[in-house]
Amino acid sequence: MSNSTLNIIKIGGNVIDDDIQLEAFLEKFAAIPGKKILVHGGGKIASRVAEKMGLKVKMVDGRRITDKDMLDVVTMVYAGLTNKNIVATLQKYKCDAIGLSGADGNVIKAVKRPVKEIDYGFAGDILADSVNSLAIKKFLDAGFTPVFSAITHNGNGQLLNTNADTIASALAVNMTEHYETSLIYCFEKNGVLKDINDENSVIETITAKQFEMYKDSGIISEGMIPKLQNAFDAINKGVKSVYIGNASNLHLFQQQKFGTCLVNK
Amino acid sequence: MSNSTLNIIKIGGNVIDDDIQLEAFLEKFAAIPGKKILVHGGGKIASRVAEKMGLKVKMVDGRRITDKDMLDVVTMVYAGLTNKNIVATLQKYKCDAIGLSGADGNVIKAVKRPVKEIDYGFAGDILADSVNSLAIKKFLDAGFTPVFSAITHNGNGQLLNTNADTIASALAVNMTEHYETSLIYCFEKNGVLKDINDENSVIETITAKQFEMYKDSGIISEGMIPKLQNAFDAINKGVKSVYIGNASNLHLFQQQKFGTCLVNK
Repeated sequence: MSNSTLNIIKIGGNVIDDDIQLEAFLEKFAAIPGKKILVHGGGKIASRVAEKMGLKVKMVDGRRITDKDMLDVVTMVYAGLTNKNIVATLQKYKCDAIGLSGADGNVIKAVKRPVKEIDYGFAGDILADSVNSLAIKKFLDAGFTPVFSAITHNGNGQLLNTNADTIASALAVNMTEHYETSLIYCFEKNGVLKDINDENSVIETITAKQFEMYKDSGIISEGMIPKLQNAFDAINKGVKSVYIGNASNLHLFQQQKFGTCLVNK
Repeated sequence: MSNSTLNIIKIGGNVIDDDIQLEAFLEKFAAIPGKKILVHGGGKIASRVAEKMGLKVKMVDGRRITDKDMLDVVTMVYAGLTNKNIVATLQKYKCDAIGLSGADGNVIKAVKRPVKEIDYGFAGDILADSVNSLAIKKFLDAGFTPVFSAITHNGNGQLLNTNADTIASALAVNMTEHYETSLIYCFEKNGVLKDINDENSVIETITAKQFEMYKDSGIISEGMIPKLQNAFDAINKGVKSVYIGNASNLHLFQQQKFGTCLVNK
């Protein structure tokens, strides 16, 4: 008996920051049939709220330094404001969403990132046994669509700020225990582009071997490399396919015309 | 066949505002056996955050005026910061909590309060059909302990700020469809007191008739009257019993030594 399908869809910051784009995206997400999970990033709202509250936003190499005050802000914004507005909008479009942090139902437990050269503060790293796939399956079986914010916990009462891309891929990998999973990264480009200035130059499918070729020849550029590396890691760990494409094209996903599809071999 | 028991416990603002008291309370809540629900108020954190963000806090007769900016703040604080920290602490004490706004799983739908003399803004009123008891039963049957923040939605994408006492009593009344429910209000006094200056003067049980007597004789004072009125309303609508007592005594609830018990006749 083949497992049923589960699509894990990640939506990034740019769309989160634009109310109109976000609602259009959520309407499309709600229309996707079958079992699905949404993972959302934070966007710039957390930094805006922090600045209004007189806090200094500290980033190192694009990663947020999460001290106690900043943890409170990201918990408020990601797990509160953003998550609950997304859930309410999905309910409007008849998708029975339920918003989750990692603490809710103990679905994702992380560990506080060890301090090496940089102290990232209350940043959580996902481990191999972080995802409670049985608890998540309970929500899916009960007919709910889980909506994950990028907040986890350590199991001992401490919330942790966690990368949303990493949560999405950890979910896709761990839920293979119960489902045939696909991972869909939505962002502002049409997919992996042969020519970064031409949105029509989408590479439709790409294997790990082709990825190495594109990388060597410089066609795939710096920012895209870790994204694709993570995606191929997920495929190596049992995820059926990974898609990368434009959030505003999500309605094309069912027709398999969405962005770039990463495949095994 | 008699229904199984469900305890709905409401915790108010004073305890929410004190980290040490809150954790002690949550440890006691986690230890209560059987099916249970926690409903938490907001505390003063929302007003503090609003002030830090340069917003004016507007109250009329103790009720918050919730304009768009203030709705964002209470959504952040109630459904985000407070709710997720409570859930993470309950997980620490091995209570499999799941935090809910009314939008999550569409569990509580409210209507925006009609504008009469005062425009309360995005304040939500609970109606007779507001509570989705089947969805809540799904969470309880799956072994989760729902933790409600005082945020609801209108089913059309709009979040609403809603009174936590009202949510607690609406849950207790509506869940009688599936369970024998009790409603437990936790606050900073030992119960309904005969002498407001003597914490040892707790009235152990009180009927509706006695309440009228105490009210007429001035023994029960102004602030307590609407609280008790609501509680007797809940009993008239099928709730088995309502308790009012000190949050720090919650461990005495199982021994039936907790605060004042309101009973039918």
